[in-house]
Amino acid sequence: MTATPEQQVAALQARYLPDVQAWLRDALADPAPGSAPGPAPGINHLLRYHMGWEDAGGAPTPSEGGKALRPVLCLTACELAGGDWRRALPAAAALELVHNFSLVHDDIQDGDVLRRGRETLWSVWGIPAALSGGNAMRVTADRTLAKLEGSGVGAAAVMWASAELNQRYLEMIEGQYLDMAFEQRPQVTVADYLDMIGRKTGALFESAMFLGALVANADPDQARAFGACGRRMGIAFQVRDDYLGVWGDTAETLKPLTDIQRKKKSLPLVYLLEAAADEDRAWLARAYADDEVSGPNVRRILRLLDRLDARRYVTQTAEACASEARALAEALGLGESRARSLEAIAAYCVSRDR
Amino acid sequence: MTATPEQQVAALQARYLPDVQAWLRDALADPAPGSAPGPAPGINHLLRYHMGWEDAGGAPTPSEGGKALRPVLCLTACELAGGDWRRALPAAAALELVHNFSLVHDDIQDGDVLRRGRETLWSVWGIPAALSGGNAMRVTADRTLAKLEGSGVGAAAVMWASAELNQRYLEMIEGQYLDMAFEQRPQVTVADYLDMIGRKTGALFESAMFLGALVANADPDQARAFGACGRRMGIAFQVRDDYLGVWGDTAETLKPLTDIQRKKKSLPLVYLLEAAADEDRAWLARAYADDEVSGPNVRRILRLLDRLDARRYVTQTAEACASEARALAEALGLGESRARSLEAIAAYCVSRDR
Repeated sequence: MTATPEQQVAALQARYLPDVQAWLRDALADPAPGSAPGPAPGINHLLRYHMGWEDAGGAPTPSEGGKALRPVLCLTACELAGGDWRRALPAAAALELVHNFSLVHDDIQDGDVLRRGRETLWSVWGIPAALSGGNAMRVTADRTLAKLEGSGVGAAAVMWASAELNQRYLEMIEGQYLDMAFEQRPQVTVADYLDMIGRKTGALFESAMFLGALVANADPDQARAFGACGRRMGIAFQVRDDYLGVWGDTAETLKPLTDIQRKKKSLPLVYLLEAAADEDRAWLARAYADDEVSGPNVRRILRLLDRLDARRYVTQTAEACASEARALAEALGLGESRARSLEAIAAYCVSRDR
Repeated sequence: MTATPEQQVAALQARYLPDVQAWLRDALADPAPGSAPGPAPGINHLLRYHMGWEDAGGAPTPSEGGKALRPVLCLTACELAGGDWRRALPAAAALELVHNFSLVHDDIQDGDVLRRGRETLWSVWGIPAALSGGNAMRVTADRTLAKLEGSGVGAAAVMWASAELNQRYLEMIEGQYLDMAFEQRPQVTVADYLDMIGRKTGALFESAMFLGALVANADPDQARAFGACGRRMGIAFQVRDDYLGVWGDTAETLKPLTDIQRKKKSLPLVYLLEAAADEDRAWLARAYADDEVSGPNVRRILRLLDRLDARRYVTQTAEACASEARALAEALGLGESRARSLEAIAAYCVSRDR
């Protein structure tokens, strides 16, 4: 009996995540008393709250732990490129911290009050504190990545890793900026959208596989090939996210509002704006011009999406991206049995329900 | 006739800043068409607006250029430590970018709508865009610092520089976080306050002199000694800033509101809360509990400050910090004539009117 993609990813998570979690907890621990200069009292607590490890009062909470897909991809890439995955742990933890930095700031930017069923950092402590918290998370990521050197990675490779993460991080910021700009822009094409999510989500996934390969001493071309595979995985992951944002089961996704209510120009909407008849497009523009999309309008948009078979279109787009990721994984020349974990991750990216 | 500190600093600015400006303009230029992956259209424009180079529509503006004191300190330290200051230009530009990153985010956090007589980034483009803009500025700083390697600085030294800047940057975030927390806290001592500004402002000044010395191949102890001197300069600079925030000429400072109207717990207020009689302290707490401090209350606070000789207290505190900086500069053993530029900068920090 073959394991499902979900089971295979769960096995990778079970293999890697206890160590990743230990690195993350260490990165966000309060400094020992007397060690100077330490973080300001309180700021690390905000970050531990965001990670789901503490409640707003500072008491430990039972944490499920997230998907941590970026660390999983990084450590998988490291092993597949012939490296010792434990040496890549600082990079894996740094990636998860950069990802969480982006969530803290995105929640401010999007005005989202809930994430994973809990109040967002800014909605508990206010925008100014959350802004600082996000910045502290990001610099903690950089400091964690720098620990690659203690992990036996040479200085030149650490600098290369740092330059790579910075470049992708800049793309991620730009992607988020474009995502917001799209909400104001009347016309956004599917090509614009795919470029945007390549930056917003693809770039950090690219970093994940690139850094894993780099730690395994892959040559530059091979590391870039790993990165290209990761980028497609990220794009596939985001398209599935967009699917779940409209048609997902909110009990699974823990999202209180659908992306239609949030007026996000995610793929279903971008497709709709391209494919709809002129009068429907004009009506959509008016419906989105209101502060909130009313209940009847949400239902009408869902009917329009159904009529244009948008679910199938979005699913097929995700599958096409996952196929590209699989083809890039095969081209890495790892042999059939070793490439299987990447295939499973690609399949998981587009089949997951949360 | 001896030059005044202002004249001496102006001479240093004239020596260094054209090159620093060229690095800054290059760092925030739009990428050449076709070079991938470049910044998102528009985001660099926001940053150039913030720097004062463009108006909100993107047209070039005549720019006076700021004080750029962190670059000046960095390049001065490099020369004094026996290095070629041009090799430290990537560090000098990175410091100015980190400083400006912090201004963009601070303006969001403090709700300030004007800076240097112009609308702040967030008040033109909104908080979400300004948040992304600040993040892009910060990553541009990191990318600029990494160019030290092209400037002939060895990989180990570049990593050391990067770790140092990260550490001080974390302190700066924490200082800003504490500054905001102090506004809510009933009691803040002068010691708390000095610790906070050591982080908020001192840390980046410390980096400036540390990095300059590091590029000049100073040994670790010497680089730290330069850094310690820079930190005291930063503290002196901030105390003077607090003075100007209450008693400065708004035509010079270009600040539309005094720190009393902004309810900042800057040194004059912290001193007042320590030195005032119980009934005045109780009244102050009530006056600050209102959303806005009324005109009559502002005048009463100014009278209270006068009665307790707060101007003299704040001036003396600034002078004491500048003296410490001068003593640390002397202890660098550079010889009397060479240490003169550091003395001038320390004097300028506490005598400037804007």
